[in-house]
Amino acid sequence: MAGRHFLQIPGPTPVPDRLQRAMHRQMEDHRSSAFPAFTRSILSRLPQVVHQTKGEAFVFPATGSAMWEAALVNTVNPGARLLAPRFGQFSHLFIQTARNLGYQVDVLEEPWGEAANAAHIEAALMADTTHQIQGVLLVHNETATGVTCNVADVRAAMDRAGHPALLFVDGVSSIASLDFQFDAWGVDCAITGSQKGFMLPAGLGMLFASEKALARVDSCTTPRAYFDLRAMRTNNAQGYFPSTPALSLLYGLDEALTMLLDEGMDNVAARHKRLARGVRAAVKAWGLRECAKRPEIASDSLTAIVVPEGIDARTVIEIAFTRYDIALGSGLSEVAGKVFRIGHLGDMNALTLAGALAGVEMALLDAGVPITLGSGVGAALAEWRVQA
Amino acid sequence: MAGRHFLQIPGPTPVPDRLQRAMHRQMEDHRSSAFPAFTRSILSRLPQVVHQTKGEAFVFPATGSAMWEAALVNTVNPGARLLAPRFGQFSHLFIQTARNLGYQVDVLEEPWGEAANAAHIEAALMADTTHQIQGVLLVHNETATGVTCNVADVRAAMDRAGHPALLFVDGVSSIASLDFQFDAWGVDCAITGSQKGFMLPAGLGMLFASEKALARVDSCTTPRAYFDLRAMRTNNAQGYFPSTPALSLLYGLDEALTMLLDEGMDNVAARHKRLARGVRAAVKAWGLRECAKRPEIASDSLTAIVVPEGIDARTVIEIAFTRYDIALGSGLSEVAGKVFRIGHLGDMNALTLAGALAGVEMALLDAGVPITLGSGVGAALAEWRVQA
Amino acid sequence: MAGRHFLQIPGPTPVPDRLQRAMHRQMEDHRSSAFPAFTRSILSRLPQVVHQTKGEAFVFPATGSAMWEAALVNTVNPGARLLAPRFGQFSHLFIQTARNLGYQVDVLEEPWGEAANAAHIEAALMADTTHQIQGVLLVHNETATGVTCNVADVRAAMDRAGHPALLFVDGVSSIASLDFQFDAWGVDCAITGSQKGFMLPAGLGMLFASEKALARVDSCTTPRAYFDLRAMRTNNAQGYFPSTPALSLLYGLDEALTMLLDEGMDNVAARHKRLARGVRAAVKAWGLRECAKRPEIASDSLTAIVVPEGIDARTVIEIAFTRYDIALGSGLSEVAGKVFRIGHLGDMNALTLAGALAGVEMALLDAGVPITLGSGVGAALAEWRVQA
Amino acid sequence: MAGRHFLQIPGPTPVPDRLQRAMHRQMEDHRSSAFPAFTRSILSRLPQVVHQTKGEAFVFPATGSAMWEAALVNTVNPGARLLAPRFGQFSHLFIQTARNLGYQVDVLEEPWGEAANAAHIEAALMADTTHQIQGVLLVHNETATGVTCNVADVRAAMDRAGHPALLFVDGVSSIASLDFQFDAWGVDCAITGSQKGFMLPAGLGMLFASEKALARVDSCTTPRAYFDLRAMRTNNAQGYFPSTPALSLLYGLDEALTMLLDEGMDNVAARHKRLARGVRAAVKAWGLRECAKRPEIASDSLTAIVVPEGIDARTVIEIAFTRYDIALGSGLSEVAGKVFRIGHLGDMNALTLAGALAGVEMALLDAGVPITLGSGVGAALAEWRVQA
Repeated sequence: MAGRHFLQIPGPTPVPDRLQRAMHRQMEDHRSSAFPAFTRSILSRLPQVVHQTKGEAFVFPATGSAMWEAALVNTVNPGARLLAPRFGQFSHLFIQTARNLGYQVDVLEEPWGEAANAAHIEAALMADTTHQIQGVLLVHNETATGVTCNVADVRAAMDRAGHPALLFVDGVSSIASLDFQFDAWGVDCAITGSQKGFMLPAGLGMLFASEKALARVDSCTTPRAYFDLRAMRTNNAQGYFPSTPALSLLYGLDEALTMLLDEGMDNVAARHKRLARGVRAAVKAWGLRECAKRPEIASDSLTAIVVPEGIDARTVIEIAFTRYDIALGSGLSEVAGKVFRIGHLGDMNALTLAGALAGVEMALLDAGVPITLGSGVGAALAEWRVQA
Repeated sequence: MAGRHFLQIPGPTPVPDRLQRAMHRQMEDHRSSAFPAFTRSILSRLPQVVHQTKGEAFVFPATGSAMWEAALVNTVNPGARLLAPRFGQFSHLFIQTARNLGYQVDVLEEPWGEAANAAHIEAALMADTTHQIQGVLLVHNETATGVTCNVADVRAAMDRAGHPALLFVDGVSSIASLDFQFDAWGVDCAITGSQKGFMLPAGLGMLFASEKALARVDSCTTPRAYFDLRAMRTNNAQGYFPSTPALSLLYGLDEALTMLLDEGMDNVAARHKRLARGVRAAVKAWGLRECAKRPEIASDSLTAIVVPEGIDARTVIEIAFTRYDIALGSGLSEVAGKVFRIGHLGDMNALTLAGALAGVEMALLDAGVPITLGSGVGAALAEWRVQA
Repeated sequence: MAGRHFLQIPGPTPVPDRLQRAMHRQMEDHRSSAFPAFTRSILSRLPQVVHQTKGEAFVFPATGSAMWEAALVNTVNPGARLLAPRFGQFSHLFIQTARNLGYQVDVLEEPWGEAANAAHIEAALMADTTHQIQGVLLVHNETATGVTCNVADVRAAMDRAGHPALLFVDGVSSIASLDFQFDAWGVDCAITGSQKGFMLPAGLGMLFASEKALARVDSCTTPRAYFDLRAMRTNNAQGYFPSTPALSLLYGLDEALTMLLDEGMDNVAARHKRLARGVRAAVKAWGLRECAKRPEIASDSLTAIVVPEGIDARTVIEIAFTRYDIALGSGLSEVAGKVFRIGHLGDMNALTLAGALAGVEMALLDAGVPITLGSGVGAALAEWRVQA
Repeated sequence: MAGRHFLQIPGPTPVPDRLQRAMHRQMEDHRSSAFPAFTRSILSRLPQVVHQTKGEAFVFPATGSAMWEAALVNTVNPGARLLAPRFGQFSHLFIQTARNLGYQVDVLEEPWGEAANAAHIEAALMADTTHQIQGVLLVHNETATGVTCNVADVRAAMDRAGHPALLFVDGVSSIASLDFQFDAWGVDCAITGSQKGFMLPAGLGMLFASEKALARVDSCTTPRAYFDLRAMRTNNAQGYFPSTPALSLLYGLDEALTMLLDEGMDNVAARHKRLARGVRAAVKAWGLRECAKRPEIASDSLTAIVVPEGIDARTVIEIAFTRYDIALGSGLSEVAGKVFRIGHLGDMNALTLAGALAGVEMALLDAGVPITLGSGVGAALAEWRVQA
């Protein structure tokens, strides 16, 4: 197919040429006397992405979901209890991971399309009078449904409950795209991967840990090796890594940090908000509805769209892919076939997204959804137009 | 600015990643025993792009406009007379080049927005009963006005006049995008550059010469050095070049030939035709008119659009560039300020062009042209939709 | 510094331009209908690198050392006993990893510079009459000392002992460089990383598992998540991965497999053997000795060289790095300061290695080791000369 | 073949990864309002490479040899007389180019292996009492024989003769490698290409013109188009180019200027001098002799080596290429078969050159030249060793 493929899934996101260039470098000796300066360039700037000023940030050669494991095995002892709302596929998988690692997870079921409910969390913590619950697992931005939770509310609920549990936040599809206030929200462990807001290929997992979380690391008895923060901290302190670092991705990360921090995290969040407004206007113009049940929880990094009864969302996606060279995200698990998703995070701008919406329009029409060509794009442009 | 820049000028065109990779290679010895196989890979396939089966094709480290000079100095003696219709900036520059080289050019003035007029050429050649005119200079696709000439008609006119002049065709913005029938149209010298249909950076000029044109080379008395086809032919015959070839661009050209010939030149032309239909539908939906005065001469590789009275097209272009990160072509010379141009040639597809049209819509509205957002995109999508 | 850096550590190894190009690609949807063909291209060819015809091969976004963990947690129940010879830093770390994961490891201490001793392993297994030992951990090529073990001998010892333990082989610095006979040697789990013989950046871990090893996966009770082969197998069977795959590295791996299999694994091993002969001849010409205590165990992928008493090997390495732009490997742990290492694995040829030896000669002389400039290079060239 | 190819011809030279990355960029609109800043970045810094403070520098999409033509047709009227020493293939070709362009060239024949003779030039100019001679054509560094001329001496001779001829200097294999003092030497037109000291692929020609040369441009009557400095100057003054610039190469040039000027031109020249000393020591150690007849004219950018009677230098080159993956330069014209050449200019360092000398040693021995392996490398290392 001629021309550029439109990669509009919620990750991996398009890698900007600048980052591709940064990664196209020859390897070097990761034990050389010159290497620590590079390590520090990354580790000193990474926390700024989430407004973290205390604790530490870590980078692993792994995916974002590996960081679920890294966060838990370093801070929670074997068999401990955890609390987690489930409201989409990624909150489900976070819970599954914890269970696979031998933890007991108390699940708060919320409808898919809803966000985590802070009141439910508060109630559960209040009920845990003996403080058995070691941690709360929260997916900030549920990539399956396009829903963003209010982490500050959850923290407030925990505080109201006077509960000492750690707050674990999955920021895979939010960090480096949406506003993320690590310190202000009292997050203890936040995790993400390289292939979303960082605009890189997958292969790096990032873990941000608070001082409170770090204080648990040395005494934590969970067996662990690859994800052991003790080895990581010892090595990082000298400017090195415990095993051979994934250099090409780190070269990319170093440059991605420059791009993000030069733009400014507030500007990055504002850009995502503006782009998302246009996409939501398009959905409305098509006469469709979002999977997110309320406007105030609609995600700025992706939009999950419900297709009309009788239409299979997978048909829309396959038509889009094969006829119009655009990749859309599919509905997962409970919403499979009912939902398709448009990623609008990372290195994205209005014209690319306009092209993507155009592709969605043709695919919808081809699949039998009676929309008017140009209607969604026009509505989005009205949001995106810059009036001097 | 975040996201991908939209490069919608009629050249350079976007370089596909595949060609970028092909050019990202270490250099080699261009005099080695292994090199001739590479030279032949290029020179044997290049003629297929223009459906040339006789004569030879040449590649110079130069731009397309240098090929005007290469074509003339090898085949036309000093001071000779040439005939050329002028109907846009590039036909004007072709004429100027010939004059700068010391040739006398009889100019047939046509309105900008019109194509070359075969009847006028026929009349001029009929009037030249002593056959003083050595060549007819024709720009196939006038990049300034978005007009495509009918080369077959011009050849027919020359034949009707029984005139022996060589037919020189500038195919800079047509070759490798639009249908080009070197043999069937009786072209003697066709020229182009690497930065349009070949989807490469500028830096290579290509010259296609008929047997009739080649027969003039050895006896042509015009002083020449860099563009001398004698040295080029001698070296090419052995698989080499007279001076150090522009290897990175040649690596790209080799791969571009694979891309083009794998797609098939008929498919390439059909793809451009389809994309152009959408753009013209958008122009119509906006209530604007094209610079091309008649539908049958409207170019499939770019569209020049006339802005309403009282609007400066340069404002549209500058707004598009600075606010929406899209580069549009400006009006040149006679049509400066009156016209802007959308390139839709090369590695292009419907969604990218939809994004571009979206950018144009916002820029037009910002500049004071009262169009309806989404109207042009919607009209284009109706053309581009693939109905199974 | 001008010119090319010489990266002569035993990993990461130089990434060939061809692989850099393969990795310089835009991302794609790893859940698309087109993706399984790519997954299968890798997974179907990867086993050929180790001459594996039964069982399965896996690729994780992780480093090679993570695969130690992946191999153990999927096949060995918590707290089980393992047996491992220790004869260098990497066999030490393999043991440490197992202990960190909660296993009990019986260690057979061997002198650094020696290989694993099959007789000692046999004796230990014979003594384990109740078959408490679940696995033997063997580092095929001890990267710290430049020593290669004979895996076939170890397997023969296990067979003589009639012991059912699994054979875990670390092939980090041998697989894809040295001969590795997965089937013939009766290996149960072999592991490696992308940054050595595969000539890629670090970031991918590969695990090769026998049918016997795979039979343990489902019933293994060790808690695990990221490295759980159950999820990997389910997804791989459909052509997908459980979490977002490290696409850029996988693109590189796909191309690396083509390079390796086109060269042929026997030719790859022979090339490494030939290059190693030259390096060893240079060491001899310098009047120095190798860390490997016997010629028959000297590694073909790297050479560890003992510096004379009174010289600090770290000085040689630092001089080489800062004055001559060449990275050498340092001595680790027990041999720190006594040994430096030259990597000669991966995308390497005689002239590059000659340049590297030249750099070593200057650094040695600068550091006070009285060698004759050119002596080592000359001796190596005598090995590398191709006589028709 | 595995490993890195050794490109040791005197151009194209190896392109450093940093420049490859700089060229791996998407295209842009060369008529945009943002473009002039880029043009100026190049044109303002280019003169510094040759220590030029007056006059102007130009960049053409062309090869270095095209610049011979560009220099002449803009400053010398048709049919005028020129004076040129001939002492190698490139001085021969410069003369041929001038003759092909219709100029009369008085040739001063010097033995190949000698430099231009200032006394002979002085005598010829003295004899031209009516100042018919319009220019002196001088190749600074004769790439065919590895000989560097003393331009200052030639300028002094011209001054002593009180002759107003322009001084045209070919600096193709010297500029950006060897010391080049445009102002101090009173050069009027200096020319070069991108594929030597600038470390880029071929495809850009550079022309440096003095005020005296520029003063001739407007009145010069030689017909010209592509190389016309009038159009170039008009466009450059606005930050643009008359035709589509070769953007990828210009992106590379911009970065190459940063590399060169950051290193400092004096340091660049000193580095080449140091590397050349080592190569000459190797030649001596092999018992061979250089084509350059005297040490004081031996080039620092390449070394031409005479093979013993009875040996065909082409055999050495072909063996080196096919067996050892190293490209050497061949003898040209008069010295074909008698000479092979080692390029040591551009992005080069001692270890790479040591590897290259190692390759030459094996090829020489294979071809029947009785040298001692390691002897040349050892002698070179003695020159290159850095003693603190």
